[in-house]
Order: sequence, then C-alpha cells, then structure tokens
Amino acid sequence: MFTNPLERSSNPHFSGDDSHETSQPQMESFPLSKNTYRNCFKTMGANKAADLLRYGKAKEGCISLGQGEGTRPTPDFICEAVNKALADGKTFYSFGAGSPELRQEISTYYSRVYNVHLPTNRITVTSSGTNAVHYALMSILEEGDEVVAVTPIWKNLIGITELAGGSIKEFPMVQDETGWTLDLDRLFETCSSSTKALLIVTPNNPTGWTMSATDVKRVFDFARERGIWIIADEVYGRCVHDLNRAPSFLDYADENDRLYVINSFSKSWAMTGWRLGWLVGPADAEDKIRDLILYENMGPPTFTQVGGIEALRHGEEFLASQKELWMRNLDVVMARLSKFPNLKVVRPNAAFYAFIKVDGDVDSYTLAKEMIDDVGLSLAPGAAFGHGFETYLRLCFAVETDVLNRALDRLEQFFNR
Amino acid sequence: MFTNPLERSSNPHFSGDDSHETSQPQMESFPLSKNTYRNCFKTMGANKAADLLRYGKAKEGCISLGQGEGTRPTPDFICEAVNKALADGKTFYSFGAGSPELRQEISTYYSRVYNVHLPTNRITVTSSGTNAVHYALMSILEEGDEVVAVTPIWKNLIGITELAGGSIKEFPMVQDETGWTLDLDRLFETCSSSTKALLIVTPNNPTGWTMSATDVKRVFDFARERGIWIIADEVYGRCVHDLNRAPSFLDYADENDRLYVINSFSKSWAMTGWRLGWLVGPADAEDKIRDLILYENMGPPTFTQVGGIEALRHGEEFLASQKELWMRNLDVVMARLSKFPNLKVVRPNAAFYAFIKVDGDVDSYTLAKEMIDDVGLSLAPGAAFGHGFETYLRLCFAVETDVLNRALDRLEQFFNR
Repeated sequence: MFTNPLERSSNPHFSGDDSHETSQPQMESFPLSKNTYRNCFKTMGANKAADLLRYGKAKEGCISLGQGEGTRPTPDFICEAVNKALADGKTFYSFGAGSPELRQEISTYYSRVYNVHLPTNRITVTSSGTNAVHYALMSILEEGDEVVAVTPIWKNLIGITELAGGSIKEFPMVQDETGWTLDLDRLFETCSSSTKALLIVTPNNPTGWTMSATDVKRVFDFARERGIWIIADEVYGRCVHDLNRAPSFLDYADENDRLYVINSFSKSWAMTGWRLGWLVGPADAEDKIRDLILYENMGPPTFTQVGGIEALRHGEEFLASQKELWMRNLDVVMARLSKFPNLKVVRPNAAFYAFIKVDGDVDSYTLAKEMIDDVGLSLAPGAAFGHGFETYLRLCFAVETDVLNRALDRLEQFFNR
Repeated sequence: MFTNPLERSSNPHFSGDDSHETSQPQMESFPLSKNTYRNCFKTMGANKAADLLRYGKAKEGCISLGQGEGTRPTPDFICEAVNKALADGKTFYSFGAGSPELRQEISTYYSRVYNVHLPTNRITVTSSGTNAVHYALMSILEEGDEVVAVTPIWKNLIGITELAGGSIKEFPMVQDETGWTLDLDRLFETCSSSTKALLIVTPNNPTGWTMSATDVKRVFDFARERGIWIIADEVYGRCVHDLNRAPSFLDYADENDRLYVINSFSKSWAMTGWRLGWLVGPADAEDKIRDLILYENMGPPTFTQVGGIEALRHGEEFLASQKELWMRNLDVVMARLSKFPNLKVVRPNAAFYAFIKVDGDVDSYTLAKEMIDDVGLSLAPGAAFGHGFETYLRLCFAVETDVLNRALDRLEQFFNR
C-alpha cells in the first residue's frame, strides 16, 4: 500500500533531483541552511566521559566505578510500594509538578531532617536531580547570561547552561595536602554584573568537599546583596560521613530569595534508575516551573512517586547502612591508594568518590580508555569535571567491598604495567 | 544551629535594608532586573485549560472527561513485567537514549505493524510523547524560527515551540457537515522562507481527523523540496477505528529526511501515568537528541521501559478491546449528542474525542468552568487547541460506558438549565 522507504535509492533532498512531484508550480528559492540542527550542538560538545562510560558499560566483564552508583539495588520496601501502587491502578495522569502526597512528604522530610519549613508550593517533583537543575536554569537564563560554576563539577551541569544559551565561567577549587579549598573572596570577585547565577554542588561531586555553614551563609549573603541566583545542588546532602546532613542554603533563605535547591532520591536510597528528584524554589517560581514541566515532560510517572514517599518515610535505616558501607570502603580505598606514589587523593568527608590526581602530564581520558581496554576497569576521566582536572580520575566506591577490592586489583595491575 | 527562615520577618532583598552583613565592602551598583525569570514566561502564557483540568480533578465527585485517558488502568501483564524488573534489581542507571532492548523492540514493532524498517539508532525512548515533541523541536529551533502548526492542536505542543524561542503560525482545519478538512494548497502557501518546521498531529487530537496516505505523501514531498522539517505527532496512529494503523510519514521517509515522528505508550495501552514515549528521527539526529537528554532528564526510569517492551510484544489484544470500547462509546456519544440542537459534532474515525461546537457566541472556557461547578463534569475548553476554537468543548469517551452515560446525563442537565 505504501512506498517502502528501503527501496528508495537516494535522497533527492540533497541531490537537487527535481524529478519528483512538486505541489507548487512556481517555487521560490529557499535556503537549505534552514535544514540543520541548532548551532548550540557545534559549540556545546558532548560529554565525552559519558561516551566512555557507555563504552565501558557495554564491555563484557568490565567493572564500572565510573558512574555514581553502587551495586545494591533499590531496597525491597520501596519497590514493594510501587508494586502495590500498580496493583491499585495508580497508572493514570498525575499532576505535572508532582503528586500532592509526595510534595507533602518532601515538606515533612525537610521539617524532620533539616528543621526547615517549606510549604508544598515551593516544592516540585522532577524527573531526576539533573532534571531539577535543568528546570531551575531554564526558568531564569536568557541567551548570553553568565553562570559562575564552582568546579570540579559534572559536565552535564555545565551542558545544561550551554543548552539554555548561557555562558559558563568556571571557578575551580584548589587541592592541597590537607584537602580542597574554595576561596570565597576570589569567587565573589569572579562574579560580574553579567553573572545571573552561581552554581554550587555541596557536598561536592567528585571531591567530597562540603561547604561549611559559615561559608554557606557568606555565599548566601553575597548573592542576596547582589541579586544573583544561587543554584545549589544538594543531592549528596545526606551522604556526609560524620553528620546527619550537610549545611544547606535553605537554612538561610526565605520564600522570596533567589535560590533553587536541587535534590534527588538517587544517591541516598539507591534509586539511580528511578529518575526521581525534586526542586525547591522561591514561592513565585511555582507557576514558571509548572509551565516548563507542562512543555517538557509532564513530570515523572505516577507510581514511581509512591516509591519516593516510601523512601522518605522509612529510608533512614537503609541510608545508615549505606553510610556504613561507604565509610568501610573509604578506608579500603585510602589504604590501597596510599601505596601508589603517583596517585594523590584527599580523604573526602562526604559522598562516595575518590577524586584521584595522577602525577605528571597525563591525559586521564586516554588513561581511562586504556584502563577499560587493558584491565577492564572503568573510571570517570577528570576532563568531565571542568578545565584543570584533566589529570584526575574519579572512582566511585559505593559498590560492595569485594567488587571494590577487585577493581583496585585491576587498578594496581594497570599502573604496574 | 542554623537560622530558622520562618523567624525572618521580611526579605531585605527587596526592601533595600542594608543592615545585614556585606561580604564586599565597596559594592558596585548592580541592576535588580537580573533578578527575574525569563521573559518568555510573560508572553508564553500558561495552558489555562490545564489549570481548569486541575480544578476539576481536585473537585470531589466531578467526572473528568477533560483529559485524554480512560478509566481502565494499565493491563496487568504490563504491570507484572515491572514488578519482575524491580525484583530482578533493574533499578540502576540505564542509557539516556533508552534501553537497547526497548529501542530494538520499537524497531521490531515498526517492522511488524507498519512494514517500516528502522535501525535502532533512529529511535530514542523518551519520557512521554510530549517529551519527544520537546526534544524534536529543541534540536532544531533557533530563536525566532517559525513553526507552522495545523490546528486544532493541544496547547502544550504550541507551548513547546514558544519555550524554544520559536514563533507559531497556526493553520486551522475547517469543519463542515461532513467532516474536517485540511486545505493543503493553502497550508503550503502559509509556509514562508522563515518556516523551519511543520507540526502536524495525525490522527488528530481533538478532531479524530486522519490524514490520508495521498496527503501524507504530498506534505512530505512539499517539505522535502522546501527543506522544511516535519514534526509528526502520530500518538494516535493505532487508534483508528477501521484500520490497523493510520498512514505514517515514515512510509515515505528515508534516514536522511528532515522528519521527526512522535509516539507514545499512553493512548494505545492505557499507560498515561507512565510518561513513556519515543521519537524517530533522521540518522544524524541521534547524537543531538542524546545530548539533549543528557542535559535535561537522562531518560525515563530503567524498569518502566520493561513495561514498554511488554506492551509492544503482547499488547495487540488489549488494544483491540480498547478499540471495541471506543467504537461502542462513539455510538453512544453520537446518538445522545444528536439530541442537542445547539451542539455540533462530526463523527471522528480515529482517537476517542468528540470535539463539540457549541452554537452561538459562547466562551467555552467559562462554560467548562460553570459545568464543573454546576453539574460536576469536566471537559476541555476549545481555547486550549488554538485560535478559532473558543466555542468548542472536547469530550474524551475512552472511559467505561456507564461513566460516559453518567457524564452525558450531567451534560444534558447542564444544557437544560
């Protein structure tokens, strides 16, 4: 009945073939340049590290410590809530900004864990933490607006700004023997009159550095005074090794402050594959974010949100067991890496990454690729975290200890080649 | 330990209060205008109909035929596949463009049902059909680019263009006693040298009109000749009452054609709450769409995609039973609406909507609001489908027949006030 497209020999579109039927007898001349993708794809650039992670993932027998997740699946009690939701027929449209029940539960969670009181209209459920950063930036950035991003930072967060037409000014933290330092005075000097937002990940992926309460307050005061938005990714807020939670920008903000806080279920409750997160914004952001959601993806699935409620309500015990694992693994990582004279790593006090500096003028992307090919170990190359980190490798130690040890055996094998 | 934000009496940010700590002793003057949301929110406008649907949904006892979904939950065999996926620990990160298994299954589905052969690199799994339209337009639209949209069309699809910085030129279909007509010659004249894309929903929501194979071919040839993208929303492609499937733009395109086809699991398999769809594009679109996904939401959940595979593999019987229900309900709707002298509706041959013209100079938004308040029935107002449809109401008849009959009782009651 229909033409089989596979039988078509060539594409007349590019060949200038004019033998096929035309609907308009007198055709004006139209530029073929229209016939392209957006210019941003030329400058934006892919996340090459993501390509590499896909490469490692597809390779038989490769151990991947390159992504930010462990080996434990989501705990049963959370999955069972979804099974029940499906059995109860919770398969219909929900609300774009999230189910009222989950928004309420997130509010309750902030009261209990953070002692911060948020009305539900400031909370939006999103399709991952990444998605929350995307909505935050999409709601404020005009073409050309500048975002100052504290680095190292995962390339995707930079890409979000580029996609929104903004420009990124990277401000790197500095590593010395004792740890990572963020020089606030220099950070503030870096902000110009064209700076629309400050993008900060605290606790930080990949360094594990956590901003102190005093510094959170200083940054907050500076941004408030200058009318600069703060975009705070607090996804690792509960993954602090010796505290119940990290200091948060929400400790200081009221509902009028130009602050977005991003969070996610992924890291604390082993829910990476769920694509479920949330965004806290000013009171007047609610309708903007809702419109963005309406025109982008209409929010996360109805029944996965029931799993989110369960995680917040009953997830503390699981989180505690995760932290135990991370602490144990951190000791293993630090002990074993200390035997490599050419690798430097500062002991992190949050998250579950070792951000490893490789001595010398190495390109860690090439190194990471070789590591996959030669010993079957996938780590994330430092170039994925901003300029100046090209000699770094990120190793995720959220996996079971035996997997970690096998991975470190391979690392040893690789560097002893 | 931290300041309680609720104890803060006012927001010094707007009041000009300078009593709080400053980090920079000599502060330059910075414009507070930076301190706002994107301009697009002022012009874009919310989908007022969506507000109204939320209003109806929240109202106790209100029957909602305003949204595009039925009353049957997702069939058990699809839900059970998800239960099994969760039990098997499929809770980890997947691939941004979708799981390789689901992309392959979609390809197989096109071979079987459409006799169209698509390699998986042209297929991206998305977080709903809306999300697929969003990615399609985001990959091509620069600020100011024009999109010609055939109307009536659901406002969200217009909003996506506005959000991407494009401008919309609406081209309305015309209704007469026998049905809806799309005048192709006039549509082609409407396309100018600034037209970047043609946006067409076929089979159409809300009219049920379906583009003939001949017209699909004519539009396709015109667009190919002119280097105009076609964005074809074919979400209702399997919801044609007397055919196995509607004609598709994929019947004519090869992998180089500037064509995006949007599809979704929502309508055919009662999976509205799943937020799962897909996008078929040219071969060279793959990396662009993947980058967009990386920087927007990283794709749908890992385990819901297993449900998608199940729907495609074993969903034909369920779809047939749905079509039976729609046909039966269509008879009910046509018979009962024919008794209203002030309501005109053309019998649709696809989808599950009656797009009802109310006689006289009525504003159907006001009418729909009154209907919720007075008789507890929620329909979608025509203004949500473009200019010129302000006197229309959309009624979804995908619900169980007894619910439909109760709804029509209320409609009767309303118009006999």
